[in-house]
Amino acid sequence: MTTRGPFSVNPVGVIHSDLAARKGAPRQGDEGAPDAWLEIHPWAKDCTLGLSVGDRLVILTWLHEGRRETMQVYPRGDRGLTGVFNTRSPDRPNPIGIHPVTVLEIDGDRMKIGPIEAIDGTPVVDIKQEICPAE
Amino acid sequence: MTTRGPFSVNPVGVIHSDLAARKGAPRQGDEGAPDAWLEIHPWAKDCTLGLSVGDRLVILTWLHEGRRETMQVYPRGDRGLTGVFNTRSPDRPNPIGIHPVTVLEIDGDRMKIGPIEAIDGTPVVDIKQEICPAE
Repeated sequence: MTTRGPFSVNPVGVIHSDLAARKGAPRQGDEGAPDAWLEIHPWAKDCTLGLSVGDRLVILTWLHEGRRETMQVYPRGDRGLTGVFNTRSPDRPNPIGIHPVTVLEIDGDRMKIGPIEAIDGTPVVDIKQEICPAE
Repeated sequence: MTTRGPFSVNPVGVIHSDLAARKGAPRQGDEGAPDAWLEIHPWAKDCTLGLSVGDRLVILTWLHEGRRETMQVYPRGDRGLTGVFNTRSPDRPNPIGIHPVTVLEIDGDRMKIGPIEAIDGTPVVDIKQEICPAE
């Protein structure tokens, strides 16, 4: 139960998507992102008990192409140089992505989810019940 | 840019809260959780450029008291045994917490934020612009 870190994160699954590269990928799920398959690794399969089509989840990913040394960026709009904690840039010290999605299909160890802007091969590190209030 | 993991997460800050123990803490921020101070570690200070009072953020924490071997729990309500990916239990393989908060005060390397159910000493691993649509 140390609080000093570093902490070790083990992927629980992986994204299979038609989005092959970060360049050209939508920056957020609600900007025309596609659906994708989330493959759960066998050791984590027990964690999915009870998931159903139609569930709204939050997927946490490891943005493996994120630049961890980046602390400030020029975000879209006209905000000027901004700390990454004030953005959703994938470039940040701990490049964890948050993706609100809906479960569209379940097929064995795979779930079709969407919309999600994560690129093909992105590791998944956690899956949770949605955190946003109902629309 | 390996995708195999494990990945190493370094705390960017720490929560200072009147909540001293997991037992008795609210389970979600909107269930009577208090405000708390988030102390940013000096090396990550540049990541906060532009943050202002009133900003709505998502805080990601490392739930250091979470039991990482837990894959299924009995959640509240009457759902029976459920995979942790279908819950927001702090017990899960990668115990990352998600906390939507508002910035209430900024004082040097500290920000007062709330409401947040994380207990005193909880490491903070990322801070992002809010992901939920406006209410």
